[in-house]
Amino acid sequence: MLVDGAPYRTVDWEDDAVVLIDQPRLPHTFARVSLRTVESVAQAISTMVVRGAGAIGATGAFGLALAARLAPDDGFDDAIAAARARLADTRPTAQNLFYGLDRVSAAIAAADAPETARDAALDAARAVADEDAAACEAIGRHGAPLLQDGWGVATHCNAGWLAFVDWGSALSPVYAAHRDGKALHVFVDETRPRGQGARLTAWELAGEGVPHSVIADNAFAHYVQRGAIQAVITGSDRVAANGDVANKIGTCGRAIIARHYGVPFYVALPSTTIDPACPHGAAIPIEERDQDEVRWTWGRTDDGGFSRVSTVYAGCPARNPAFDVTPAELVDGLITEHGVFPASPEGVAAILAAAGRGGPTGV
Amino acid sequence: MLVDGAPYRTVDWEDDAVVLIDQPRLPHTFARVSLRTVESVAQAISTMVVRGAGAIGATGAFGLALAARLAPDDGFDDAIAAARARLADTRPTAQNLFYGLDRVSAAIAAADAPETARDAALDAARAVADEDAAACEAIGRHGAPLLQDGWGVATHCNAGWLAFVDWGSALSPVYAAHRDGKALHVFVDETRPRGQGARLTAWELAGEGVPHSVIADNAFAHYVQRGAIQAVITGSDRVAANGDVANKIGTCGRAIIARHYGVPFYVALPSTTIDPACPHGAAIPIEERDQDEVRWTWGRTDDGGFSRVSTVYAGCPARNPAFDVTPAELVDGLITEHGVFPASPEGVAAILAAAGRGGPTGV
Repeated sequence: MLVDGAPYRTVDWEDDAVVLIDQPRLPHTFARVSLRTVESVAQAISTMVVRGAGAIGATGAFGLALAARLAPDDGFDDAIAAARARLADTRPTAQNLFYGLDRVSAAIAAADAPETARDAALDAARAVADEDAAACEAIGRHGAPLLQDGWGVATHCNAGWLAFVDWGSALSPVYAAHRDGKALHVFVDETRPRGQGARLTAWELAGEGVPHSVIADNAFAHYVQRGAIQAVITGSDRVAANGDVANKIGTCGRAIIARHYGVPFYVALPSTTIDPACPHGAAIPIEERDQDEVRWTWGRTDDGGFSRVSTVYAGCPARNPAFDVTPAELVDGLITEHGVFPASPEGVAAILAAAGRGGPTGV
Repeated sequence: MLVDGAPYRTVDWEDDAVVLIDQPRLPHTFARVSLRTVESVAQAISTMVVRGAGAIGATGAFGLALAARLAPDDGFDDAIAAARARLADTRPTAQNLFYGLDRVSAAIAAADAPETARDAALDAARAVADEDAAACEAIGRHGAPLLQDGWGVATHCNAGWLAFVDWGSALSPVYAAHRDGKALHVFVDETRPRGQGARLTAWELAGEGVPHSVIADNAFAHYVQRGAIQAVITGSDRVAANGDVANKIGTCGRAIIARHYGVPFYVALPSTTIDPACPHGAAIPIEERDQDEVRWTWGRTDDGGFSRVSTVYAGCPARNPAFDVTPAELVDGLITEHGVFPASPEGVAAILAAAGRGGPTGV
């Protein structure tokens, strides 16, 4: 998508290097890093220079393709195995990371010599990235008709192109509708405690020229009540087999408020986000993160530095659940690359079937 | 209430001075300021060294009593009139400020000489403060039976003793139940953008020894869904004649979420908060405050200073409504100094009648 009028991807391959947008420096500085060693790619994943399911998957894939380019003919297989182990160790719960690594590993295994394996690995990594971008673009194509000219649209956290290779999930319908000429105004939740809406979503929307306002998380219900918001779209970290949605903390409350006022609440996701082995939301463990994320706020200082401030008394107890579960019955539709489906066991099964992942067990 | 084991009031009179807790320095520094001139009292109100309806009313009353002590016999009436005008100009929309000033003015007017007026003014100011504290204590007495041993209780913003002379409104039932020996755990909303929950409510609760956790505003629904919260109590800035409640932004969303899960949502208020001239919530104008409150977060730095950081790109548009309106039908009870009443036209009329403000017009 656009930054200062020029198109970028979150993860790319340029001049024999993995090139990432340096996300911790956003929104204050837009910079890209070129990574030329497997170790630097692994570090970028584990320190969250890159984050988001799709973006991590492509970064892992390009990282393994980089390993293939750097590995000598002598000891090639050992070098690949070591690189794969190092990359897999960065974010062991990121399902897409393993998907990307597996695709490139398979391409390497199918090649008959290191020389052909190097090209096959890069082709496979490019395919992982391109397919992620294409799936997200398709989410936008299917979701855009749900948004009408003149509407206010609310989103939560960042499920934009920075979380994928391009386009994003929740923001893709917004970008598509905007490019179609519809006038939209996006209400961007700040998304405490980590502030991904304020930091990343607002910055993304500015790049694409989509009108937007950042609001405190507390202001959402007020704008729904006053008729300023006609639709809500969020992303998802995991969708269970019954349609329950795990996503950034605060999502569930927004779904309840939207339903109370009859405003549609959509969840946008590539079908890879569905976990058919997870029967329902109550089976999803909720990660509790560091209390300091609540106690402190990090950001740009007046003198252009980067620092943190605390609003609570020293040692104040805090609780910090990272995700919550939105029951399927509060979700008005799952917007995927295969179309819009109901958030129900039947809807999820239909998405899996369209993605070629169907079958008696749903896996 | 208690700070480090010693009892304090938010506003007091000591050694011929108005003594205030310096609230902008909380929670990082607990300090009190002694004000010995009318101008310094006026400045303290306008710069929000003191805030909250009850606390402002008592500060205005003590300020005018201070004016009477300082005014010379010669030109006494002119000095009082000038002081009153100066104090009234500080927060012209604060209804309780005028109530406090009127009580002291009336006492002065009823006296037959400056010498007796000085004592009468101080007695009247003390009565304003004592009545505020007594009303809040009664709110606690009536509200405490609604809270059961072992419950999680959520609150929003700061409607504690720092907003009144003592006890507070929303927190008074919590303090009373805690002193009765009930084990409660308070979930304290951070309350972005200004963070009054994180800054003030958590600090108050620590002083009284009430167990608490600060949470991001986004986490409220998660804890209600998981059964950790059995009751919600907030304060109010204004209650309309039909029972609609204006309060800090974010209150309405919490009421919707609480109702969705069948958790009782109470609003605690002294009866003076009722505005019988306001027919319903839609008639209440919603103040839109400075965008910088959303763009920036102020707090303590690692080196003990006080500074601000921004999470958004420079110039990012923001919206900042200060209040929202919770419809009466979502409120399970109005906890007042006269008892607990339904949030309805009949309930509000009954509160006004109990407060001696009843009558055909309700005024």
